[in-house]
Amino acid sequence: MPTNRQIHLDNRPTGEAVASNFKLVVTETPALQDGQVLVHHHFLSLDPYMRGRMNDSKSYAVPQPLGQTMQGGTVGEVVESRNPRYIVGDKVVGMGGWQEYSVVDATQPGALRKVETTHVPLSAYLGAVGMPGVTAWYGLVKICEPKAGETMVVSAATGAVGSAFAALSKARGCRTVGIAGGPAKCRYAVEELGFDACIDYKLHKDAASLSKALKDACPNGIDGYFENVGGMVLDAVLPRMNAFGRIAVCGMIAGYDGQPLPLSNPALILTQRLKVQGFIVSEHMEVWPEALKELGTLVATGKLRARESIAQGIESAPEAFLGLLKGKNFGKQLVKLI
Amino acid sequence: MPTNRQIHLDNRPTGEAVASNFKLVVTETPALQDGQVLVHHHFLSLDPYMRGRMNDSKSYAVPQPLGQTMQGGTVGEVVESRNPRYIVGDKVVGMGGWQEYSVVDATQPGALRKVETTHVPLSAYLGAVGMPGVTAWYGLVKICEPKAGETMVVSAATGAVGSAFAALSKARGCRTVGIAGGPAKCRYAVEELGFDACIDYKLHKDAASLSKALKDACPNGIDGYFENVGGMVLDAVLPRMNAFGRIAVCGMIAGYDGQPLPLSNPALILTQRLKVQGFIVSEHMEVWPEALKELGTLVATGKLRARESIAQGIESAPEAFLGLLKGKNFGKQLVKLI
Repeated sequence: MPTNRQIHLDNRPTGEAVASNFKLVVTETPALQDGQVLVHHHFLSLDPYMRGRMNDSKSYAVPQPLGQTMQGGTVGEVVESRNPRYIVGDKVVGMGGWQEYSVVDATQPGALRKVETTHVPLSAYLGAVGMPGVTAWYGLVKICEPKAGETMVVSAATGAVGSAFAALSKARGCRTVGIAGGPAKCRYAVEELGFDACIDYKLHKDAASLSKALKDACPNGIDGYFENVGGMVLDAVLPRMNAFGRIAVCGMIAGYDGQPLPLSNPALILTQRLKVQGFIVSEHMEVWPEALKELGTLVATGKLRARESIAQGIESAPEAFLGLLKGKNFGKQLVKLI
Repeated sequence: MPTNRQIHLDNRPTGEAVASNFKLVVTETPALQDGQVLVHHHFLSLDPYMRGRMNDSKSYAVPQPLGQTMQGGTVGEVVESRNPRYIVGDKVVGMGGWQEYSVVDATQPGALRKVETTHVPLSAYLGAVGMPGVTAWYGLVKICEPKAGETMVVSAATGAVGSAFAALSKARGCRTVGIAGGPAKCRYAVEELGFDACIDYKLHKDAASLSKALKDACPNGIDGYFENVGGMVLDAVLPRMNAFGRIAVCGMIAGYDGQPLPLSNPALILTQRLKVQGFIVSEHMEVWPEALKELGTLVATGKLRARESIAQGIESAPEAFLGLLKGKNFGKQLVKLI
């Protein structure tokens, strides 16, 4: 059996997550039991939600256990099978974790999903045609409820979720405005992702200044907002929301490291009759087929060309993840394992 | 024509509202035109929303104009009519404002509504069977979406909205918990209004302490919360919300006077997948008939016996209103004008 390198969570962060929270462990892959397959991972997905699970606090997910392989989405190839539904060479999406190989009980519903790679590149199943894409779809379609001519805004606009959000929102005839960090990301958002405008939050020292820039970029106000970051950005968006606006709360990355970040003026929820709703895409599996179909078509037809940041080798995963939390990635953050 | 005493908004508050913001004005009621009726007000309703309209700021309603009669709900009797649909002696609900008489163009849809006073006392149409009752109904039924066995919580529990909320929530088989100020109100909430428990927020110096009391009163967590006050109370409730909980934001009375009150930990909206929704009952006229029917039945059958605080005479309206903002009232605050 092949040697398997894994990244474990060794200890929990106090404040900011650091490289020494992780530990590289080398093991042998065990022999397969009936029903199992051995998957050789080609790509590992790094996602902001993983930071929340590193804390041992009440959250939407069970915390990542200490001393075990970090959990996470993977795409790869079946290299050995004792399950009649899979043959060697099948391309599969799963939750293989931060390691080079995984042994999967493929009799469990949803444990693995075979995918086609003729029209959609394998890595896209971790991004635009995977969990981040469906996340954008759910927040936009089910919570922001866009109508043609309305204005939709997303933070972390050039990330995997933001990229998909732009394509989905434009397809619905909405003015689509992004918020991202730095001129290169903002240029990319407009030139490649189809945003009508993108605001560089790094040019603004406080919420009032960012809010003014949003006013210019959204002359008719904001009808739907997809929140990935929280903190100052949310404070800046809230006063720009139109009456009966909808806010999908998907991420609060700004608050992961320490004290909760307050919301400055919650009374606007009342005065503007807003709906603010948190969600986790894995709790809405019923929408995945519809969402994946639309996202797959957008990618296959070139209407959604999401950028990827690719780190090489399992040993690079911790640093790539810490960079993601600081916005150093540009587009979907992946680790290439072959 | 009779002499008419009115309370005008003379100037806007800077910070806390004060008696000198108002001015008593004596006028003559004008002669009626065709289609109009003259209503002699028996009761004037005082409601927290009026405080928001005293500010000249972006809000859900046009600000109360300066130098004009304060707007507000009234019940009274037709004393003169030039409209064939109304005769002298009809009991009517309207928006007559802070004055003894109003001349109403009864050809306008919704300007006046005739009511029966055999089973429901006239003043109840300003409370349990009026705007506050429908407010409770909308927030509970349409936003909190109660299911039998769930736990529903309301702040300002012994006010007009809270009283109706308790009866409506109990009728749906929910554990119903109130938050109110002082032992007398809390005792009344449990003994008269049917709350399963009521927490005295005045016993708690901070949100953490109040939150602990909520934990004891809501052993299964909170599924629906009806927000009338904001500030520390909302901070205390949020950590007790169950996954997929619903919060109806009806009032933020704590923040009316000055700086916005922040929400300490908005990330809980994400981690608990909450829905937080603001609303204004006057924008949902479609529910009024259904809501008023249920509320009228609850009052007529003695299942909803809401207390009233009654001030006497139009000149007492400003002080009664300022007292309401400080929680000095006990139940629905009215001004009796006859």
